[in-house]
Amino acid sequence: MLTRDTLRVLPLGGLGEIGKNMMVYETTDDIVVVDAGLMFPEEEMLGIDLVIPDISYLVDHADKLRGILITHGHEDHIGALPYVLRALNVPVFASRLSAGLINVKLKEHKLARERTVNVITPGERFELGGIGVEFFRVAHSIPDACGVILHTPGGKVVHTGDFKLDHTPVMGQHTDLNRLAEIGNEGVALLCSDSTYAEVPGYTPSEQAVGESLDFVMSKAEGRVIVATFASLISRVQQVIDAATRHGRKVYVTGRSMIDNVTMALDLGYLDDPADAVSRIEDLGKQPPNKIVIMSTGSQGEPTSALARMANQDHRWVSIQHGDTVILSSSPIPGNEGLVNRVVDNLFKLGAEVYYNRIANVHVRGHAAQEELKLVLSLVKPRFFVPIHGEYRHMMLHARLAQAMGMTPDQTWVLEDGDILDIRGLNAELAGRAPATNVYVDGLGVGDIDQVVLRDRRHLATDGMVVIIVAVDRQNGRLVGRPDIVSRGFVDIEESADLLERTRDMAASALDGADHLAEWGVIHTRIKDTVARFLHGETRRRPMVLPVAVEV
Amino acid sequence: MLTRDTLRVLPLGGLGEIGKNMMVYETTDDIVVVDAGLMFPEEEMLGIDLVIPDISYLVDHADKLRGILITHGHEDHIGALPYVLRALNVPVFASRLSAGLINVKLKEHKLARERTVNVITPGERFELGGIGVEFFRVAHSIPDACGVILHTPGGKVVHTGDFKLDHTPVMGQHTDLNRLAEIGNEGVALLCSDSTYAEVPGYTPSEQAVGESLDFVMSKAEGRVIVATFASLISRVQQVIDAATRHGRKVYVTGRSMIDNVTMALDLGYLDDPADAVSRIEDLGKQPPNKIVIMSTGSQGEPTSALARMANQDHRWVSIQHGDTVILSSSPIPGNEGLVNRVVDNLFKLGAEVYYNRIANVHVRGHAAQEELKLVLSLVKPRFFVPIHGEYRHMMLHARLAQAMGMTPDQTWVLEDGDILDIRGLNAELAGRAPATNVYVDGLGVGDIDQVVLRDRRHLATDGMVVIIVAVDRQNGRLVGRPDIVSRGFVDIEESADLLERTRDMAASALDGADHLAEWGVIHTRIKDTVARFLHGETRRRPMVLPVAVEV
Repeated sequence: MLTRDTLRVLPLGGLGEIGKNMMVYETTDDIVVVDAGLMFPEEEMLGIDLVIPDISYLVDHADKLRGILITHGHEDHIGALPYVLRALNVPVFASRLSAGLINVKLKEHKLARERTVNVITPGERFELGGIGVEFFRVAHSIPDACGVILHTPGGKVVHTGDFKLDHTPVMGQHTDLNRLAEIGNEGVALLCSDSTYAEVPGYTPSEQAVGESLDFVMSKAEGRVIVATFASLISRVQQVIDAATRHGRKVYVTGRSMIDNVTMALDLGYLDDPADAVSRIEDLGKQPPNKIVIMSTGSQGEPTSALARMANQDHRWVSIQHGDTVILSSSPIPGNEGLVNRVVDNLFKLGAEVYYNRIANVHVRGHAAQEELKLVLSLVKPRFFVPIHGEYRHMMLHARLAQAMGMTPDQTWVLEDGDILDIRGLNAELAGRAPATNVYVDGLGVGDIDQVVLRDRRHLATDGMVVIIVAVDRQNGRLVGRPDIVSRGFVDIEESADLLERTRDMAASALDGADHLAEWGVIHTRIKDTVARFLHGETRRRPMVLPVAVEV
Repeated sequence: MLTRDTLRVLPLGGLGEIGKNMMVYETTDDIVVVDAGLMFPEEEMLGIDLVIPDISYLVDHADKLRGILITHGHEDHIGALPYVLRALNVPVFASRLSAGLINVKLKEHKLARERTVNVITPGERFELGGIGVEFFRVAHSIPDACGVILHTPGGKVVHTGDFKLDHTPVMGQHTDLNRLAEIGNEGVALLCSDSTYAEVPGYTPSEQAVGESLDFVMSKAEGRVIVATFASLISRVQQVIDAATRHGRKVYVTGRSMIDNVTMALDLGYLDDPADAVSRIEDLGKQPPNKIVIMSTGSQGEPTSALARMANQDHRWVSIQHGDTVILSSSPIPGNEGLVNRVVDNLFKLGAEVYYNRIANVHVRGHAAQEELKLVLSLVKPRFFVPIHGEYRHMMLHARLAQAMGMTPDQTWVLEDGDILDIRGLNAELAGRAPATNVYVDGLGVGDIDQVVLRDRRHLATDGMVVIIVAVDRQNGRLVGRPDIVSRGFVDIEESADLLERTRDMAASALDGADHLAEWGVIHTRIKDTVARFLHGETRRRPMVLPVAVEV
C-alpha cells in the first residue's frame, strides 16, 4: 500500500541489460516516468527488429500518469516513445535537441499531430501533479543531455540518466556538479545513477583527447581523411569540422542519418561552421585529396552504412584508394565487433591507412568511470542508492563503490526490471513485482512474437527443416499415396537427393498399419520420431521435422 | 614453375582469420605442412559445428607430402588432423604433450590404429626428404609448445607458431631466443611469425602476474574459491594448485575436459602436486569452505560447462552460495562475450564474489605483443617476412612493425589463405592461388554444406517460413482443391490464425486461371510472389515462402 510518504521506484527497463531504459517513480497520487527507450535485439532474438519495455503497469495506472521525462535523445532512451504514446496519451518533456529528435520519430510513426513534446529549460522547476520536476545538465555523447531531480512528498530523487564528467567538454556542456552539491546539502532520499561504465577504474578521458588525435591524423595524412562516427555524436562532428578547418580541408558529409543530423544541428545552432567547411558529397571532385575530409556513418560496421559501402567498393561517390586515411571514431557496441573488424580488414586490403579504437585514441566513451561515480555519490549523499543502466555485474560493482564509501547494504538496492521498491523515510523494502518482460517488435508486429516463434527460428537456423506431406482423401479420410518431402537449410538438395529419397521411404514406412486421418495424432508423432531418428543417424543433424496432412 | 632454389609458401588457413591454422612449405621434391587446425564457426555460419581447411592442394600433391609438423596441442592447430589424416596417410610430428592430445583425438575418430604420431625432441634435427626439420621451444598458454625451423634448398625458414616471451614462466618453458639468435646469424630466408596480438603495444605480462592475483584472492576469501580456466592451460592449473597448497586448500576438479587434462598432465608429469592437493569433486563435503578450491571448466561461459551449471544452480556437486568467490581466469574469445557476461551476472545474483578479466589481473594472454614481435624480427633478421595467425589488420600491423624496423615493402608479404608465394634468392613473387575456402563440418557431413544451405538457414532464422501446399491429381495433372499452409517461426500460429487463413485465400487466388501441373513453373512463381507481397504488406516480415506441388 502506498502511503503519503511513500516513494515507489519501479524500473521497467535498463536494469540488468543495456538499453530500453524506463524508470517509474510513483507517489500516492502521481506517476512520472523517466525515459522510454528501445534495445537492439541480442543474438538469440532471431529476426527481431527491436525490443521495447512492457508498459502494462503504466496502462493499469494511466489515471495517475502525469508525464514522461526524457533525459537525452539516444535510441535507448527515446526509441520506445512512439509505441508508448500510441498506447498512452501522456505529455512528454525534453530539452530542445531531444525534443527535435523525438519529433522526427513521431513524424515517422504518424503521431506528430496527436502528441506534443514540451521543451524544458534545465534548471527551471515545474510541477506534474504533486511532483516538482527539474532537469539538470549533464555531459554525455550527445548535446542537451540532462539528469532529472524530482521533488516528491516522499523525498527528493536524483536520476542521472547517462552521464560522464568532462571538465574540458567540446561543446561547453558540463555535468552540473554545483546543482548536485546543492541538492545533496538539501537532503536526497534516492540517487539513481548510471552504471554502464562501473567496471572501469579511474576517469573517462575528456572529448578533448580525441580532438588532439584528429588534429594529428589530419596533419599527417597526405590524402583524403574519412571519419566515421555515430550520427548523434554532434560534438565529435564539431571536432572534425574544427580540425578540418585548421588544416584547410572541406568536410563532405555522407550517410543518410549523418546528413540529417548535421543539417539539423547546423539549423538549430548545435554545430558551428564559421569557415563553411561542410559540403555536399556530390561536390567531392572539386577539391584535391589533401583538402578533403569525408564525414560518414558506419562506425559500427553496419552493412548498409556509407563506410561499409566504401569498404566494399560500393559507394556512389567514394572509392577507397591508396593514400586514404580512415578513422573509426567509435568503439564497437558489444556484439558488433565482428562487423567492425570486417570493415577495418577490407579498408586495409584496399590500401587505406586505418585508425580505430584499439590502436589509436580516436574515441572516448560517454559514461562515467569509477572515480566519477564516486564523486557524484559523494556530492549527492543520498539516503538510498539504486544503480541504474547496466547489466547485473555493472550494478553490483556500482553498489560496491557506494558501500566502499560507507553506505550500508540496507541503503544500496540492486534492482532488476520489474522490482518494486518502496521507500518510506529511513526504510526501504521490496513490495512485489510488475510485468517487465521484453516486448519484441518485428516488422509491424508489436508483442506478437513469443518464445515459441523464437525457439522455432533457432531450430530452423541450426539445422534447417524437413516437411513431410501426407495426402488424405477428403471423402473417406484415407491416406493417399507416398508421402512427399520438402527440405531447406538442412542439406544440399541436389547432392543429397538420395538421402531425401530414403527419408521419404522412412516416412512411408512410418505410415504402415495406419491409414486413416482419424489416427493423425499418432501418425504425426510416429513420422516425426522415425524421420528425426533416421536423419540424426545419417547426418548427426537435427532438422525441424514437420509432418503435414493435406486433404485432397 | 618450381626450380631447385625455389621455396614455395602456401597458407591454407589462419591468414585473414583466427583459427584453422595450416601452412604449406614446398620445394621441387618435397612438401611439409605445419599445423592442421580447426576454426569454430562464426555467427553467420548457422548450425555449423566446425570449419577446417581445404586440403585439395595437398591431395593433388600427395606424392611430395613428407609430413605434418604440429607446433602445439590447441584445437586451432590440431583440430583438423582427424579429417586430414582420413584423406591423407602422412606421418605427424609433435612434441610429447601435443602427441598425447592428438592421440586422444585420433582415438575419438577411430583412427588411432592406422595413423601414428612421432614424438620429436626440441633442438634435434631430422630430415623429411630434402628438408631438414628442427623444433624449438616457445612459451605459450600450453606446455610443450614449439616453433619450427626448416632447412630447405631455397633457404632457412623460421615458423614461430603461437608464442609469447615470458622471462618468468610458470612451468619453466622459455621461448628459445638463443636458437633464434643463432639461426638469425646463419641467415634466414623467411620468417613466419604470430600476428594475433600485433594490435597491442608493449609486452604481454608474465604468467607470474596471475599467480600473484590468485594468491591475493585465496588469502582474502573466507569461503570456497572457484577457479574456471581453459582445460588446456596447464600452467594456470599449476598456479592454482600452488596457491591452494600455500593456503592449505584442497583442489577439487570438475568438468569433463578439466578432469581429463589434469589427470593426463599429472600422469605425464606436466603437473606437480607435492601436497596431494588435487581431489575428486565427490569428496567436496569433507572439507570446510575455507579449505576448498574448485577447479572448473566454463571460463568461456559455454552453456553446458561446469561453471555455467553452477551459475544456473544445476551442478551436481556445487551450489553457488553467499561467501563463494569465483575467478574467471580467462578472457572471452571474440564472440563469447555475451555468454561470459551472462555467467558472471548469474554468479553475482547468487551472492558470489566474482573476479574476471575486466576488473582484476586474473588472466594473461598467450601471444606476443608488439615489443616481443620486434625482438623476434630483430634476432631472426629474415630476408622475407610473412605475418601469420591473424585477421587481415593484425597481419598488416605486424608487417608495419617490420617496415618500421627497416624491412622494405618488397620484403614483407601480407598473404591470405590460398596465396602462393615463391621465394627465389633475393626475389619473391606471387605465383597464383590454390583452393582455400572454408570447409564446413556439420554433424557427419564434411564439406556438404554450401552457401545455399547457409543462406536458407539465415532466411529461416530471420522470419521463419510459410509452406504453401497445392495438391495435383496424378491422373490428369489438374490442381485439386484449396492450397494448404504450414508455417513456423513466422507468427504465433494461434494468434495469427486469421492472417494465415487469408494467406491461403491469397495463394488460392494466385492459382486463378492456371489449373494444370504443366504450368507449375509459372504457378510456383506466382504463388510465391503473391504470398510474399501480401505477407510483407501485412507484417513487414519476409518469411521464406515455399510453394509445393504434391501429386495425389
